[in-house]
Amino acid sequence: MREVRIDKLTGDKAIYVSMRSKRPLDKIKEPDDESLNSDYSSWCPFCAGNEHMVEKETHRVQKDDKWTSRAVMNKFPAVNYESDDIFGRHEVIIETYRHNGNFFDMSEQEFRDMFSVYRNRYNELINEDGINYAVIYKNFQRASGASLNHPHSQIVSLNMVPPEVEKEVNLIIDYYEKNKRNLHQEIINQEIENKSRIIYDGDHFIAFIPDATRYNEELRIFAKYKILIDDFKGDILEELVFVFKNLFKRVYKKDGYLPFNITLHTPPKGMEEKFRLHFHIIPRRFNFGGFELSSNLFVCSSDPEQTVDKLRFNKNRKDD
Amino acid sequence: MREVRIDKLTGDKAIYVSMRSKRPLDKIKEPDDESLNSDYSSWCPFCAGNEHMVEKETHRVQKDDKWTSRAVMNKFPAVNYESDDIFGRHEVIIETYRHNGNFFDMSEQEFRDMFSVYRNRYNELINEDGINYAVIYKNFQRASGASLNHPHSQIVSLNMVPPEVEKEVNLIIDYYEKNKRNLHQEIINQEIENKSRIIYDGDHFIAFIPDATRYNEELRIFAKYKILIDDFKGDILEELVFVFKNLFKRVYKKDGYLPFNITLHTPPKGMEEKFRLHFHIIPRRFNFGGFELSSNLFVCSSDPEQTVDKLRFNKNRKDD
Repeated sequence: MREVRIDKLTGDKAIYVSMRSKRPLDKIKEPDDESLNSDYSSWCPFCAGNEHMVEKETHRVQKDDKWTSRAVMNKFPAVNYESDDIFGRHEVIIETYRHNGNFFDMSEQEFRDMFSVYRNRYNELINEDGINYAVIYKNFQRASGASLNHPHSQIVSLNMVPPEVEKEVNLIIDYYEKNKRNLHQEIINQEIENKSRIIYDGDHFIAFIPDATRYNEELRIFAKYKILIDDFKGDILEELVFVFKNLFKRVYKKDGYLPFNITLHTPPKGMEEKFRLHFHIIPRRFNFGGFELSSNLFVCSSDPEQTVDKLRFNKNRKDD
Repeated sequence: MREVRIDKLTGDKAIYVSMRSKRPLDKIKEPDDESLNSDYSSWCPFCAGNEHMVEKETHRVQKDDKWTSRAVMNKFPAVNYESDDIFGRHEVIIETYRHNGNFFDMSEQEFRDMFSVYRNRYNELINEDGINYAVIYKNFQRASGASLNHPHSQIVSLNMVPPEVEKEVNLIIDYYEKNKRNLHQEIINQEIENKSRIIYDGDHFIAFIPDATRYNEELRIFAKYKILIDDFKGDILEELVFVFKNLFKRVYKKDGYLPFNITLHTPPKGMEEKFRLHFHIIPRRFNFGGFELSSNLFVCSSDPEQTVDKLRFNKNRKDD
């Protein structure tokens, strides 16, 4: 059975193929990379001890007299401040000092430190003159576009709202004009009511697999109400850490060492009331090919409800 | 120097970074794959002699009593005829019987046979009941999404015009409403007049690198006037073969064994007068990462005019 589904958040179209009794895909093995046997690699510019190899540090989280997570200027920035047409800042967020860390094994404290760096860098970059947006994203493994193994995210501030975010904003505006209701809140409420695609439903965040996304098995984490990056502290931060820790533990159990991208979409200025902060977690098991590039149609052969069954957790099952 | 450029054909935005005295990128080596030493591989379903390994043949070009190029049903179709919502046919076009052939070394006769299969399959598929479009595309090497080495293209017919083509069509319509002129013809005329980005300018086709595309060094081949796939014969076919042969020879000289995608966009029904048939040739040297996925902004660090200088050819330099 095949059908075209439209992603309510992005407007993207995808062809869904449901295949009964589909065999599960193999788990992906750890790469055969010696440097991943240790938490330090002598040639890695992001390792503690190799600070001289990278550009200027902009922020750090310390424990005793050592940094645990920090941000540095990107050596090969996508943007800088040398142009009037497009400008901004590009930094690398070194999630943990551990060379061989990753989202599948990071501790709650490591996620906490990482999100605290996210918050610090976002707050500083978004308030610079002329800046209209800042995207935070992560590439994990070469298949996702990463060039270095050491766990890191990136933040890019821009004088423009990027087209992908604009697309989401336009759908909110259109929806409000037609229905006088908030699209993002409706998406959240419908997922909660429907239950079958919910991985986690907490006080501040929900995690789910939408019924339609162009990327096979894309996961989304949504703030349930108006939460900004500046709110990544206290209870909100604790729940976010809990969600990441538990979600990625289950992704690993299901898929192994899966390459993925994460993108964090925050409300653009002026959209804080209607745009709910959310993460897209995009598996990169397969590469996009000519069919996707020529048609902008993606083929999804997974069943969101079935996948969710393997990932679901709740507040009381903290460490199973 | 950085600037945002907008692709007139697609509306895509890209960040262009011009870097003076940039070092040329390394050429990409042939993969270390033993099966590519021979024009036959015993396990390859697309090789002559292994016809029993694949689905039904739908067309072939023969020489003496052997096929040189043929089309077969795709074993894992993106679409089929089992649904009313989205349907169509998915076939594989085996470009040449030679297992180790590729666009860098195929003969003019091989290209001729391949385009003749394109024409046959397109004409049959586009005329089936309820079909509104057919995309032809090619994945070359794993980085581009290919799973088999044997040279092949694919054709997918659909009951809908895919979003990427619709995007191009909407720009033609908008442009016509505002300017009462044909967008595609203007793009072609401007490139010819400007000269600096033209790789080849012939009687029927031009090849060029646009000043703005989201994919670094994307090449385009455009029909200079109304040409449909059904016109791939006689002089038109000869020039198309000449362009492909000479273009890919120069790409190989410049980049080596470059992974790439090709997508062929033909006019949707009713748009034959305004939509000029064109090929997108998209290099896949690097993988898309989180920045592209989160922003739909691509960073291009090449200078179209400089690249064109290394690829340019004309009708009289047939075999240099």
